[in-house]
Amino acid sequence: MKNILVVGSLAYDSIETPRGKVEKTLGGSANYFSVAASLFAPVRVVGVVGEDYADSDYSMLKSRKIDTTGLIKAKGKTFHWEGAYEGDMNEAKTLKTELNVFEYFNPELPAEYKSSEFVFLANIHPQLQTKVLDQVKSPLFVGSDTMNLWIQSCRSDLLKVLSRVNTLLINEGEAKLLTGTSNAIAAAASILQMGPRYVVIKRGEYGFLMFGPEGYFMLPAVPISDVVDPTGAGDTFAGGFFGYLAGKVNGSIKTQDLKWACIHGSVMASFTVQGFGLSSLSKVTHQDVETRLSLFETATKHP
Amino acid sequence: MKNILVVGSLAYDSIETPRGKVEKTLGGSANYFSVAASLFAPVRVVGVVGEDYADSDYSMLKSRKIDTTGLIKAKGKTFHWEGAYEGDMNEAKTLKTELNVFEYFNPELPAEYKSSEFVFLANIHPQLQTKVLDQVKSPLFVGSDTMNLWIQSCRSDLLKVLSRVNTLLINEGEAKLLTGTSNAIAAAASILQMGPRYVVIKRGEYGFLMFGPEGYFMLPAVPISDVVDPTGAGDTFAGGFFGYLAGKVNGSIKTQDLKWACIHGSVMASFTVQGFGLSSLSKVTHQDVETRLSLFETATKHP
Repeated sequence: MKNILVVGSLAYDSIETPRGKVEKTLGGSANYFSVAASLFAPVRVVGVVGEDYADSDYSMLKSRKIDTTGLIKAKGKTFHWEGAYEGDMNEAKTLKTELNVFEYFNPELPAEYKSSEFVFLANIHPQLQTKVLDQVKSPLFVGSDTMNLWIQSCRSDLLKVLSRVNTLLINEGEAKLLTGTSNAIAAAASILQMGPRYVVIKRGEYGFLMFGPEGYFMLPAVPISDVVDPTGAGDTFAGGFFGYLAGKVNGSIKTQDLKWACIHGSVMASFTVQGFGLSSLSKVTHQDVETRLSLFETATKHP
Repeated sequence: MKNILVVGSLAYDSIETPRGKVEKTLGGSANYFSVAASLFAPVRVVGVVGEDYADSDYSMLKSRKIDTTGLIKAKGKTFHWEGAYEGDMNEAKTLKTELNVFEYFNPELPAEYKSSEFVFLANIHPQLQTKVLDQVKSPLFVGSDTMNLWIQSCRSDLLKVLSRVNTLLINEGEAKLLTGTSNAIAAAASILQMGPRYVVIKRGEYGFLMFGPEGYFMLPAVPISDVVDPTGAGDTFAGGFFGYLAGKVNGSIKTQDLKWACIHGSVMASFTVQGFGLSSLSKVTHQDVETRLSLFETATKHP
């Protein structure tokens, strides 16, 4: 079993969906990722929180043996995001983003983090992603995510990151924006020209599409009829993806392993959408994962 | 091998997509369906065309041994649809619909059609669908499609049809409209309450979702990077679906057979979207189908 390092946001989110509304619930890419990945492998978090960050939210991570040595508590308030979803909930509308302590975040890795084998650079400024990556000695496998803001405002920084990662995990709308195409299949091919050996395009309720040297691998999402809140599903996917790899893979990573990683990502994400924030994901057991893997297999396996 | 009866439109379509524009090209659900299905099994068409319908368009069907005895040539012009697609081309915007000869269409089946084993009621007025179904003696398997207009304006007629079909094949937006839900998984479950034993929800580039007594079966579409015109993809799916069943199945139809039918529907639809109108689909050979089935399997088979 290998170690996973993740850098990303820890946040308090206010979310409204057709199923209800929550105020300042625990969120952020690093939280979703870590909770999902920690079911399979040890996780080390790098990030910053504010003075308002609850002790219980720290201890939630610690209770899962997630290493929080790299979490800084800074003066000010924790990162805050407000968003709303309508209709089929495939796209969030951002109502407010308060960077707060994130504005001056300068990631410094604790010494023991620097030998992490797996690295996930969640959606933060590409210069910060680079700064983290520079500190890791010789990672086995690096993935990154990004968003509209960085694609539009710091493309050259982003392209530098892409030239150094093994895989980009990105949502469909952002993949199209990044490549200037309206077709996801074409976008995937175009992203490989930017450096990564693989790309995973996350398609919400429609699942994922992976593209790499051995071609395409695509499956729909686990069938869930009671979607409550899709926030964090993409980060959870990444957590399941990296968790599977770090927990199961010995030696070099093959396309076959990445296919299984995508399936585990899908399965983990299917829990997240069933509750607001982390409420559903944080209750998931290994037995739940097995049951859902089997449901997913039944629903998507060729006859 | 069994016979397939299809009732639907034969049309001249004017279509604009980001890839170009065509004027009055051959289209209509019955044409797409028949051309796709005829690769696998004999097809009988019921429909109406106008005096302007070209001899070459008739003979295109006949050259595929599609039985056109049930095609009426009526006074007036052939049904005409004008539509446009933008961006990812997942939804057509209807610019104009001229019913023309379709307005007074009264389907009467030729005697030999009445013993057809497979029946597909493409998207026409539910009263006409019923009228056709009433004339078929004891079909093995009946499917139907529908659209927003009938869901909104003649729901009770539509529900009568649904109580008599084995499967509804419907696109995702219409499935949600029909059931008043914004979740496709929930919509599928709700449609089974209306009568059909199975429902197939067509999701465009995201593939399909089938639901029946043995649960869900879902796969994405065949990966196609050069989508030119999605018009007719849904009808082509139905053609591949019924063609597979009529060509391959002996005895009672099992869930396993319907899964393969969905896969053949997907594969056939993937050809249609690569050209305007019927231009790409009408060139497809058995060898092309085999090659694409194998591409689809590679892209979507579990590791």
